[in-house]
Amino acid sequence: MTGRRGRPADEGDGAAVLADLDEAQILVEVLPPGAPPAGVLVGPGDDTAYLAVPSGRVLVTTDAMVLGRDWLDEWSSAADVGAKCVAQNVADIASMGGVTTGVVVTLVADPQTPVRWARDLSYAIADACSAEGIAVLGGDLSSAPAGVRMVSITAVGEVSGPPVLRSGARVGDVVAVSEALGRSGAGLFLLRRDAAARGPLVDYHRRPTPTYAQGPAARNAGASSMLDISDGLLRDAGRIAGASGVRLELRADDLQPYVDALAPEVGDAAWDCVLRGGEEHTLLATFAADVTLPNGWRAIGAVTTGTGVTMDGAAQEPGGWDHFHG
Amino acid sequence: MTGRRGRPADEGDGAAVLADLDEAQILVEVLPPGAPPAGVLVGPGDDTAYLAVPSGRVLVTTDAMVLGRDWLDEWSSAADVGAKCVAQNVADIASMGGVTTGVVVTLVADPQTPVRWARDLSYAIADACSAEGIAVLGGDLSSAPAGVRMVSITAVGEVSGPPVLRSGARVGDVVAVSEALGRSGAGLFLLRRDAAARGPLVDYHRRPTPTYAQGPAARNAGASSMLDISDGLLRDAGRIAGASGVRLELRADDLQPYVDALAPEVGDAAWDCVLRGGEEHTLLATFAADVTLPNGWRAIGAVTTGTGVTMDGAAQEPGGWDHFHG
Repeated sequence: MTGRRGRPADEGDGAAVLADLDEAQILVEVLPPGAPPAGVLVGPGDDTAYLAVPSGRVLVTTDAMVLGRDWLDEWSSAADVGAKCVAQNVADIASMGGVTTGVVVTLVADPQTPVRWARDLSYAIADACSAEGIAVLGGDLSSAPAGVRMVSITAVGEVSGPPVLRSGARVGDVVAVSEALGRSGAGLFLLRRDAAARGPLVDYHRRPTPTYAQGPAARNAGASSMLDISDGLLRDAGRIAGASGVRLELRADDLQPYVDALAPEVGDAAWDCVLRGGEEHTLLATFAADVTLPNGWRAIGAVTTGTGVTMDGAAQEPGGWDHFHG
Repeated sequence: MTGRRGRPADEGDGAAVLADLDEAQILVEVLPPGAPPAGVLVGPGDDTAYLAVPSGRVLVTTDAMVLGRDWLDEWSSAADVGAKCVAQNVADIASMGGVTTGVVVTLVADPQTPVRWARDLSYAIADACSAEGIAVLGGDLSSAPAGVRMVSITAVGEVSGPPVLRSGARVGDVVAVSEALGRSGAGLFLLRRDAAARGPLVDYHRRPTPTYAQGPAARNAGASSMLDISDGLLRDAGRIAGASGVRLELRADDLQPYVDALAPEVGDAAWDCVLRGGEEHTLLATFAADVTLPNGWRAIGAVTTGTGVTMDGAAQEPGGWDHFHG
C-alpha cells in the first residue's frame, strides 16, 4: 500500500500527465490534505493503515469501475467516477445494516492520464467519504497499458449486532424498498439518447446518492433480508429469492408510482428502468408482516413460496446488468 | 461485492473464455470449494463479508498487479500472479508486525480471458491464503477492454499491540534484514536474458515466499521501524530514513554475502539486484543497539544522523521501481 497526504504544488498550465511525475510527486499532487478522522490509528503513508474497530467485527466489501465498461469520459467526469465508486461500496455496507468507517482506493491508469483527472477523482472520493464520516485510509497507484483506467475501492465498516443477509426472507414477509427506483437507469437512457442530456436523473446516474442510513434503520426495525439494487430490481430480488429459498412476488400497482415519476422523462422505457435499471443503490429488504416499516420505506410486494421473482403472479425476465455481457 | 463458492462444472475442452459464461457461472467455475475458516462470520456470497477482529483494531492494505506492467503471460502463469499478489499484501501486513486474517480479490479482465486462467488465479490465491490461515472473503469481477487484465487484493489483519511504523528509527539503531536480498531481482534478470530460464531465483521472482512470521517476531523483539522491500533495498531504506528523519548507513561487507550468493547466477548484476531489486518482500527493520536480533535477522548497517541512504559513507542512486517509469 502507498499513499501520503500533502499539499498540491502548482501544476502550471494544468496539462501534466502522470508520466511527467514520479510516484511520490503524483501522491503529493492528487491526495487532498487533511488529518485522518478519529479512529484512524495509522493513516496513509505506511505499509498499511490501522483502524479502530470497537465492535470487534468488521464488514469488508470491494467494487471496481473500469473506463469503457462502467463509465465513459464523455459522460462522466473524474469526480463523478470517484463519487459513484464510493457509493457502490458504501451501499454494500449499508445493505448489511452497517456503517462504513474507512476505504482504501486503487487507481490503475495509463501514464498519459492527466494529473488533473487523478486529482479530481481523489478529491471527489475524499469529499464523498468526508460527507459520511468515512476515512480514506490509503491505496495503491499503478500504471496500465495505453487507454486503460480503472478505480477499485475496498470499504470496511461495522454493524451494531448481526448483519442483515440475503438469506433471511421468510414466506409471509413484506418486500419493501427504501426510496425511489429506476433513477439511474433512466439517467443512462437519457444520456444514450442525447449525450448532452441534463437534469436530476442524469445527475443520479452519474453520482447516485442513496440514503445509506436506511440500512441501519431497516436492520433496527428487524429487516429479515436486505441488499442494495446494483444490477436491477428483478435481478437483485432474484438474489434474495435464491439465497432465501423463496419467491418474491412484486405488485405492479405498488411500483406504478415509481414508473409514473420517470415516464415524463423517458416515456415507455419507464417500466424497464424500474424493473431492470442498475446502479440505483436503493435498498431492497424484507420485513415480517407485523413490522412497521421505517420512515421512507414502501412495500412493493410479498414473500411467497416458490422460486424466483414474479410480478402480479407472472414470471419476469430479469435482464439487468451482467458484467461480461453488458 | 460478489462471490460464491461452488463446485467447478466440467469445462469440456478447457478452451472456454469468460465471455462464454454469465457472471454466476464464472463464479462457480473459478471459486474453489471449501468452508471459510473460523472467524469468518459471513463469507463470500452476500453484499459484504463479516469478519471477527478480536483485538478491536484492523490493519488494511491493498496492492494491484497489471498485465504488461507487473507480469507478462510469457513469464508468469495465472497461479504465479495469484501467489505473488497475495505475497505483496501479506508482506505489507507482516511489515507492521501483524498477521493477515482475510483478503478480498478483484479481477478485471478482458472477456476473452480463458476461464482456466481465472480459475488458476483463484485457486492459487486460495492456496496461498490457506497456507497462512487467511480467509478469502469475497471479491469483485469486472470485464475490461481487450487485452487488459488486472488483479487487486485488499488484505486485513491484526497486530498484538501497536504496529511497527516506518517512522520509528532512531540514531544508533541497528539496520537489519529478515532474510536474503536480491533474489527476485536476480530472477527477473535471468528471465530477461532468457525467457526459458529456470531455477530457484526465477521461482522466487515468480512466487516470492518471504517468511511472514519474521514481522511479528521483529515487533516482539522491539523493532523501532520496519517495512518490506518491494521497490529495492535503497529505495525502501530511503523511506524509513525519510519517515524517521535519519540516515541509514549500510555496510558493503554485510551485504557481500547476499551478493556472493547471486553472483554465480547473475555475475556483475549481483550488486544491483541486492541494492535495487524489487518485489523481494524481505523485511527491513531497525532495532535498538542492545536488542538481540530475532533468529534469522542479520545486521546490514546502522542508523545515523543525516538524511537518505549511504553505503560505507557514500550516497547511492536508489534506482529501483517507479510505477510510472518502470
